Parts: sequence; structure tokens; C-alpha cells
Amino acid sequence: MPKVTDDYKEKRRREILDVAEKVFCEKGFGSTTMTDIVNETEFSRGGVYKYFSSTDEMFQAIMDDRDKKFSTYFNQLASDYETIWQALCYYLDEFEGNLKSLKSEFGIVQSEYFIMSSRYKERGPFLQLRVDRNMKVLEDFLQIGVDTGEFKPIQPLEAIVLFLSNITDGLYLNTHMVGYERAHIVEQFEGLKMYLTQALGVAKN
Amino acid sequence: MPKVTDDYKEKRRREILDVAEKVFCEKGFGSTTMTDIVNETEFSRGGVYKYFSSTDEMFQAIMDDRDKKFSTYFNQLASDYETIWQALCYYLDEFEGNLKSLKSEFGIVQSEYFIMSSRYKERGPFLQLRVDRNMKVLEDFLQIGVDTGEFKPIQPLEAIVLFLSNITDGLYLNTHMVGYERAHIVEQFEGLKMYLTQALGVAKN
Repeated sequence: MPKVTDDYKEKRRREILDVAEKVFCEKGFGSTTMTDIVNETEFSRGGVYKYFSSTDEMFQAIMDDRDKKFSTYFNQLASDYETIWQALCYYLDEFEGNLKSLKSEFGIVQSEYFIMSSRYKERGPFLQLRVDRNMKVLEDFLQIGVDTGEFKPIQPLEAIVLFLSNITDGLYLNTHMVGYERAHIVEQFEGLKMYLTQALGVAKN
Repeated sequence: MPKVTDDYKEKRRREILDVAEKVFCEKGFGSTTMTDIVNETEFSRGGVYKYFSSTDEMFQAIMDDRDKKFSTYFNQLASDYETIWQALCYYLDEFEGNLKSLKSEFGIVQSEYFIMSSRYKERGPFLQLRVDRNMKVLEDFLQIGVDTGEFKPIQPLEAIVLFLSNITDGLYLNTHMVGYERAHIVEQFEGLKMYLTQALGVAKN
């Protein structure tokens, strides 16, 4: 019964990635070895290596799963709200709320991985792939608003998406480093909305 | 003649820091040891330790020097231009130009140092000090424009300064990772100016 086998494999793969994520958060990506992860799982060394042969592979698998969720999330948002602007504001408000009760260190692991990529050139293609696919999700999302006449952008959507991501990434790091209040997160989201209203040419109702 | 001695000390200190900066850029901060730096200087181990006892001390000394220049730069700008808005645009244009011909890796070293600070809690006070003093420089700079009636800000200056720094820091990283063209640097600076015009309430001439 191959179906059962596939389910089992997927469950095990998921378990290993959950452990990997936890260890990356605790030790940082650069300081984590395969042995650290194997030791934290219930599996043998061989049992882990059957699924992943390096911490890079694990990290990239975690990002693949997250990016799939990111894509599903925006498709859902687009269908849940009457306008894309409302949906976008919901996303920003939710992101802001998550910063308030910041729990996960995984964003720090991501930053570490990508910032250090200038020293590990082999990470380049994956980095590029990720930027491209996540930008595409946001561009397609905003494009719906352009198609319905809700937005009349005065900048290329690609540039708007980069600006938006640049700010949200930075606010995550700011919050982590100086805290939600000191980073003036509320005002910074207001600032981001000021920019977006203008750059997207949001129709005034 | 203590003056000569002080000059000599300062020259030697500067030489060591230049070497440290070079090694940090090549190896990354986390992978650099004191021995790596000593080996690259013309001095003995003791000759280096007389000035700095750790790579953290060296990094912080480099940042202190840079932050002094940052402060001098903005004071100069404020006196060189007729309006603070012109001076601010000059700064942004110059920053943009530097990204175009991005040479230094030191921004990556800085990002690494600060991002990893969540794992090295002892870096906290220095990190906070740096954020505070550089924000103060930018706030004082913008405050001149408020005092002369050139700006009527609709957000706290502190929030505006954080937003500005968040974007410029991010654009440096974007450029490093995907390149000037792909990061749409030109449009992103346009976007930043859109925000600033509105948030600062720049008087229309």
C-alpha cells in the first residue's frame, strides 16, 4: 500500500524538519551541525540522512513549506475580501499583531542564512528562486486590484512589492532588536500604508 | 613629548582597525579570531592586545569611528544646503549612488553582528547605544527643518527616522543579494521620497 508509505514518509520528514527548525532557532543556522539535529530526533543517523543530507537541504525544505503557505494565504485573502486593498490591510494588521507577540526566532535564522549567502555563493540560486516566487505571489495579488480598476499604480508592481517586503522584513528585525514599542511599529505601518496608498493609486471611496 | 606618543598610538590603533575591517569583510565577524587579525598585521600578539582584547572591541571601535563620521556628515550637510529637504535628498541620492557601485562588504558584517546579537546578549547595550546615537543625529537634522517651518511632520520624527533607516538598511542588503537593477533601487528611493514628503509634511514651493 504505497499510500500509507507516503503518508509515513511525509510524517517523518515533517518531524525531522520540526526538530531542525527548533535547533536552528536555538543555535543559529551556521552553528548547527547534522549531528545536533540527529541527536534531537528519535531517529538514527541513517534514518535522518535518508531524508536530508545537509542542514542546507533542511533549511531549504522548511522555506519551501513556508512559501507554499505564503502563497495559499494570499490566494485565500484575495477571495475572502471584497477589495484587494482591504485584504492587503488585513495582512499588514496581522503582520503587525504578530510582531507584538513575537515568539519565533526563525526570522532571525532566515536573515542569518540570507545575509551570509554572500559568503556561501552556492546559496545564490535558492535565494533567487525564493525572492522570485514570493514576489510573484504578491505581484499576482496586487495585479487583481489593478485588473478590477481598484489600483492605478504609479510605480511598477515589482518595485512596490520589493518596497513592501523590504519594510516588513526590516520591521521584524527592528522588533527583535529593540522591541515593538521602541521600534515605533504602529507608526511604521502607518508610514507603509501612506506609501502604498500613493504608489498603488488606491481609488478613493 | 606626550603628543607624539598619542599620535603614534592613534596611528597604530587605526592600522589595526583597518586590518580588522578587512578580515571581518573576508571571513565574516563570527568566523574571525584575534589570531586571524594579529597574523594580518605587522605587529606582535602583545602589540595588538595592548589596544584591543577582543574582536568585539575592535568591531565596536570601528562602529564608533563610523558613527562619528556619520554625525559630522549630517552637520556638514545641514550647513551646506539652503533647506533640510535639499540636504536630505542629497543624502539619499548619494546613498543610492553608493549602492550602484557597491564595493564594501562591511555592511554585511554589520548586519551579521546585529542580527546575531539576539544570541549574544552582551552585545545588547552597544546595539542600543548605536541605535540611539545615530537616530539622534538624524532627528536633530530633521528638527532643523521643523524649527524653520520647512517641515510640518504628521508622524513623530523618531518614527520617520526609523522608517528611513529601515529602508536604507534593507536596500543595502537587497542590492547585495539580488543586485542594483533587480532590487529596483531607483524606484525604491522614489518610494521613500513619496513617504518622506508626506510624513514630514514638506512645504510645497
